[in-house]
Amino acid sequence: MRILVVNPNTTASMTARIGAAARAAAAPGTEVEAVNPAMGPASIEGYYDEAFAVPGLLEEIGRGEATGVDGHVIACFDDTGLEAARSLARAPVVGIGEAAFHMASLIAGRFTVVTTLARSVPAIEHNLMKYGLAARCARVRAAEVPVLALEDAASDARRRIAGVIEQAKDEDGAEAIVLGCAGMADLAAALSSAHGLPVVDGVASAVKLVEGLAALGLRTSKTLGYATPRPKRYTGLLDRFAPR
Amino acid sequence: MRILVVNPNTTASMTARIGAAARAAAAPGTEVEAVNPAMGPASIEGYYDEAFAVPGLLEEIGRGEATGVDGHVIACFDDTGLEAARSLARAPVVGIGEAAFHMASLIAGRFTVVTTLARSVPAIEHNLMKYGLAARCARVRAAEVPVLALEDAASDARRRIAGVIEQAKDEDGAEAIVLGCAGMADLAAALSSAHGLPVVDGVASAVKLVEGLAALGLRTSKTLGYATPRPKRYTGLLDRFAPR
Amino acid sequence: MRILVVNPNTTASMTARIGAAARAAAAPGTEVEAVNPAMGPASIEGYYDEAFAVPGLLEEIGRGEATGVDGHVIACFDDTGLEAARSLARAPVVGIGEAAFHMASLIAGRFTVVTTLARSVPAIEHNLMKYGLAARCARVRAAEVPVLALEDAASDARRRIAGVIEQAKDEDGAEAIVLGCAGMADLAAALSSAHGLPVVDGVASAVKLVEGLAALGLRTSKTLGYATPRPKRYTGLLDRFAPR
Amino acid sequence: MRILVVNPNTTASMTARIGAAARAAAAPGTEVEAVNPAMGPASIEGYYDEAFAVPGLLEEIGRGEATGVDGHVIACFDDTGLEAARSLARAPVVGIGEAAFHMASLIAGRFTVVTTLARSVPAIEHNLMKYGLAARCARVRAAEVPVLALEDAASDARRRIAGVIEQAKDEDGAEAIVLGCAGMADLAAALSSAHGLPVVDGVASAVKLVEGLAALGLRTSKTLGYATPRPKRYTGLLDRFAPR
Amino acid sequence: MRILVVNPNTTASMTARIGAAARAAAAPGTEVEAVNPAMGPASIEGYYDEAFAVPGLLEEIGRGEATGVDGHVIACFDDTGLEAARSLARAPVVGIGEAAFHMASLIAGRFTVVTTLARSVPAIEHNLMKYGLAARCARVRAAEVPVLALEDAASDARRRIAGVIEQAKDEDGAEAIVLGCAGMADLAAALSSAHGLPVVDGVASAVKLVEGLAALGLRTSKTLGYATPRPKRYTGLLDRFAPR
Amino acid sequence: MRILVVNPNTTASMTARIGAAARAAAAPGTEVEAVNPAMGPASIEGYYDEAFAVPGLLEEIGRGEATGVDGHVIACFDDTGLEAARSLARAPVVGIGEAAFHMASLIAGRFTVVTTLARSVPAIEHNLMKYGLAARCARVRAAEVPVLALEDAASDARRRIAGVIEQAKDEDGAEAIVLGCAGMADLAAALSSAHGLPVVDGVASAVKLVEGLAALGLRTSKTLGYATPRPKRYTGLLDRFAPR
Repeated sequence: MRILVVNPNTTASMTARIGAAARAAAAPGTEVEAVNPAMGPASIEGYYDEAFAVPGLLEEIGRGEATGVDGHVIACFDDTGLEAARSLARAPVVGIGEAAFHMASLIAGRFTVVTTLARSVPAIEHNLMKYGLAARCARVRAAEVPVLALEDAASDARRRIAGVIEQAKDEDGAEAIVLGCAGMADLAAALSSAHGLPVVDGVASAVKLVEGLAALGLRTSKTLGYATPRPKRYTGLLDRFAPR
Repeated sequence: MRILVVNPNTTASMTARIGAAARAAAAPGTEVEAVNPAMGPASIEGYYDEAFAVPGLLEEIGRGEATGVDGHVIACFDDTGLEAARSLARAPVVGIGEAAFHMASLIAGRFTVVTTLARSVPAIEHNLMKYGLAARCARVRAAEVPVLALEDAASDARRRIAGVIEQAKDEDGAEAIVLGCAGMADLAAALSSAHGLPVVDGVASAVKLVEGLAALGLRTSKTLGYATPRPKRYTGLLDRFAPR
Repeated sequence: MRILVVNPNTTASMTARIGAAARAAAAPGTEVEAVNPAMGPASIEGYYDEAFAVPGLLEEIGRGEATGVDGHVIACFDDTGLEAARSLARAPVVGIGEAAFHMASLIAGRFTVVTTLARSVPAIEHNLMKYGLAARCARVRAAEVPVLALEDAASDARRRIAGVIEQAKDEDGAEAIVLGCAGMADLAAALSSAHGLPVVDGVASAVKLVEGLAALGLRTSKTLGYATPRPKRYTGLLDRFAPR
Repeated sequence: MRILVVNPNTTASMTARIGAAARAAAAPGTEVEAVNPAMGPASIEGYYDEAFAVPGLLEEIGRGEATGVDGHVIACFDDTGLEAARSLARAPVVGIGEAAFHMASLIAGRFTVVTTLARSVPAIEHNLMKYGLAARCARVRAAEVPVLALEDAASDARRRIAGVIEQAKDEDGAEAIVLGCAGMADLAAALSSAHGLPVVDGVASAVKLVEGLAALGLRTSKTLGYATPRPKRYTGLLDRFAPR
Repeated sequence: MRILVVNPNTTASMTARIGAAARAAAAPGTEVEAVNPAMGPASIEGYYDEAFAVPGLLEEIGRGEATGVDGHVIACFDDTGLEAARSLARAPVVGIGEAAFHMASLIAGRFTVVTTLARSVPAIEHNLMKYGLAARCARVRAAEVPVLALEDAASDARRRIAGVIEQAKDEDGAEAIVLGCAGMADLAAALSSAHGLPVVDGVASAVKLVEGLAALGLRTSKTLGYATPRPKRYTGLLDRFAPR
Repeated sequence: MRILVVNPNTTASMTARIGAAARAAAAPGTEVEAVNPAMGPASIEGYYDEAFAVPGLLEEIGRGEATGVDGHVIACFDDTGLEAARSLARAPVVGIGEAAFHMASLIAGRFTVVTTLARSVPAIEHNLMKYGLAARCARVRAAEVPVLALEDAASDARRRIAGVIEQAKDEDGAEAIVLGCAGMADLAAALSSAHGLPVVDGVASAVKLVEGLAALGLRTSKTLGYATPRPKRYTGLLDRFAPR
């Protein structure tokens, strides 16, 4: 089985870390291809960056489809471009945000999300509502750690995340923690041990969900919202993306 | 007062019709500038087209901000790129979908949306949920009319729309109708007379809401979800859009 | 265009201030007529006062209809008698509470309401639920300021309101503030500057929404919940209000 | 125990029938006093009539309180003036609409409401949402029977109601029926036998709930939304109702 | 009228206290039979205990039906086995949790539940959602008092409960308190006096609701979810419970 | 990896079919142990059967835990005893109902559930609400096929199921179908081909989810609702199940 993992930002070092996390989670027979777009923002911190990450992301999804991958993972916690990717793909497409929410819902009554910046909180809350899982989320908390600080061992990012997890246990009645950024993928096991409750990483979760869907032959529905794009003219810079 | 109305698809004839509808709705002192992006899809029919419409749309929003417009209207019923546009703008930004929902909520207990294609229904339902107004919408119905058929006087588009409005009255308990496509803007008055209930067009609604917000000095909040994009590197085709 | 603004309590000094706020918000061609009922409570602080404000309010709405106003504003944050007024009127009727909620929803993901007394909180929460906008409201907070203290420059009302706004920013994730009393109308601009986020006043908001609805020819739906009252006998004190 | 049952319309024959239904439901030791206001509409069919029924209703609630009744029933299915009555009363106050919803929720997963006119449907749906019980109601259906036709044995009211109940069973998955008008009180038992599922009447339900609350010493909370009205000046026709 | 009150745990002293509370609440003509199963857990603290309490509970419900009781009360705040009991019974069945929620909803806008252990909170929250009354509940709080400590006069259980009620008033906007354990039944009146707001006990509430339902001839619906179990083979230890 | 699949009814032929479906779905390295309890009902059709299936189910879950299985599947679409099983287990526990809902949510905006009997619909709807996924489900439909008829090749069960799927496509806007009974597991692939949209079986879905959770070391949270049962005395038939 081949799974395409797309980091929708253009920071190759983060792609490498995400790829490693995905491979660590993958089953023996699963080949993980971790890529990032050639064009777009270096990190996704809010709705504007997200918008410019989508064309490059869709280009990668399209390439994956063309080469016959069995499934796609979108490795940004905002689930950047998820619906558009599903419209393009026949293989299943899973975002790491939704993956973590679904997995956490299977082992805990209610979970708290720990994300990077306060500005990301509304987008995550909106996704929870869209997926139907808002009632399973006790609270979305920001550790106030910029995404790329997670790449920097000297930052106090880990200490801040630990502090927020303790708050979630004390104040939110959280029974599990969801790590709200692809860059936190390698912290899950250590945090779970340290804090005594399940800590769910979206990258690994998405890999297992895509493996599961693909193994069962479950592919993206094409009957309504995710129907194949109708052929039409696109103009300008983006014309090469026009559906045919 | 100057209002920028962006048709996020690249079909100039539709931009012209939208501009005319917007000018017809505007107050005497309001100058309406109706534009469409240089790049992107000829129409927006589903999530994929929407994704590729956003960069060009944001470019227009950015130009509008640079020239000091008092507010922006996004003239696609999907409210394409609304959150990203709000992140970029300080002036208020209103989508024609949300505009119609809010206006209809002020004159009717419950409304039915009549849109073009069934594939657009899930995106509209999702927006209603995001805005909080899902409970005010009795049903989202598709007339199965392609967007550009609305440009074609010989099509049976109007007859189909009329049929769906009668169903909405009979079966949904609809007290008002929301027209679910920018291309339907000039049908509202005639349909309201013919069917005996308010018929709300989003283009006109959005113009009045932006005029209202701008007159009151109400500008997009910059404190959390719509915070100004953080400066960062963008790569490739889209690098010129990087926030600085 | 002529808009009737009804302060549903009988305190003429508050009517004058509301009228001034409405006129300040109105477009050049809009004539604002600010009135209050001849009968009813001096202020509306809870459900009981609200009930006795409605007959006088409806009398004013009826007079406005008879003189052909283009729209009505109900200038109490509880949106006193809104549904009954809509049943009576063909012109659009907008309450200042709903007006502020809708306007705030267009410039912020989530808002906090700052009202006068704790006893008013449940009614406001109930309205938010009825309108469908409860999910857009982070919290309804009371500054514990009686309505008429807002008329008294020597009171500490403004200091209290400022304190509650800071709490809303710190604790609620509020991206905008809605002022929860008609008597606070003239504080909005100063509070917005002082606290660095949009502060929405319902009186001004309602004026702009009614202007917008009226300009577009959108009138109250008469097909179901707001159908014209059926003719019938009314008895006693209130007999002159019987629908004919 | 003494229970005041207030029919908020001024039709004495309906008051008599409601009183009979209430007495039939009351426990041996319960004295039922059935009254209607001296002023107000002959029937309540929509929001406008409701508004003018409230002052007279509250006058009766106030008299009941003054004579020390143990509880109050508001015998209109819209639960006319319920919150205002609770603000005035220390004894429990139960509306027949909410009473029927609560009782039906104890014997059925989901119920359908059968009311008189389509124009009443939105108000009932709104009450269900306010009470939190909307999810327990499969649908609110109108039999298109005017309230006073229920007084007329020659009308086809009963046949129409029977037809709607069969639709509710077939199409709504209704496990119980709630009769949506005080004037239907005496039909419940016969309809239950005829249609083979529980049929709940609000008048009888409210009597039992008030008896229960009163027996347990449970009185209306005075700490927030239903706090005793603050003393203030009322003007004009309604001045005698001012809280002191 | 005969009401069966089943304490679903096997602690006879608690059954005796529950029976006393039920009898204190019952009307003069009501005979209360308080029982507990011969088999099952000594107390119900979480989902596991609940599962093993159900067979014994249903055995008692079945006995009650066989002897023709007029209604059943399930006297555990989790409403243990409620749906299964309704499937078995034709008489009405009311759980003390739902009873308290419904009664509190009639005298207060919003209530806080005070239960024993934090581990019970999710089950109670889930029931509130199932009943539709979650929006009426401000918060479910645990006093961290084990169930059987309520039997021990020397414990600090009462002091802890009092502390939590004060928090509910200060922080939750609670207008009433619901006592979240059958073992707290005899504290309600004293706590109401001490804290100045209604305090609702589920045992007494359920008795009044069953009395009311039974007096009105309202029995459990048999048309869908609570349909009589289909005859089938049961195997092993539990074979004697097979529906015939 | 070893997964225990418990069919909570006592029909061995169904256990064999479920085991085959589970093994067909399992990854190469996964050992599936399919069992059914020694005691309990031959099929689960409603709340009463469900209650008597739980003790035997929990006995099997306990045995699985004792032998160190990596995860558990509860193979009844009602997710019989799910919360109690989670309280007992440290390994992850997944019900086939929730599994199918989560998997369908990843490939379709909205799905329809096709179950056996109308009496099962309310329990499934309730589970959807509990999991938070009710908004993702367009409708729960019953094919009116008894569970054991699925074992009988001569029945018209398949034809009925096909008919309901076509209704779901036409009337519900369903983008995927969830098969609402463990006994339908082997129909999924053929139905998906025949009807042209994804058809999701819960048994296979649950196997993949448990494999995924176990591979990632995600185990049931023990901090609140699923905390390990407190040691206590159980009495009678069920005493051997007492937590120690």
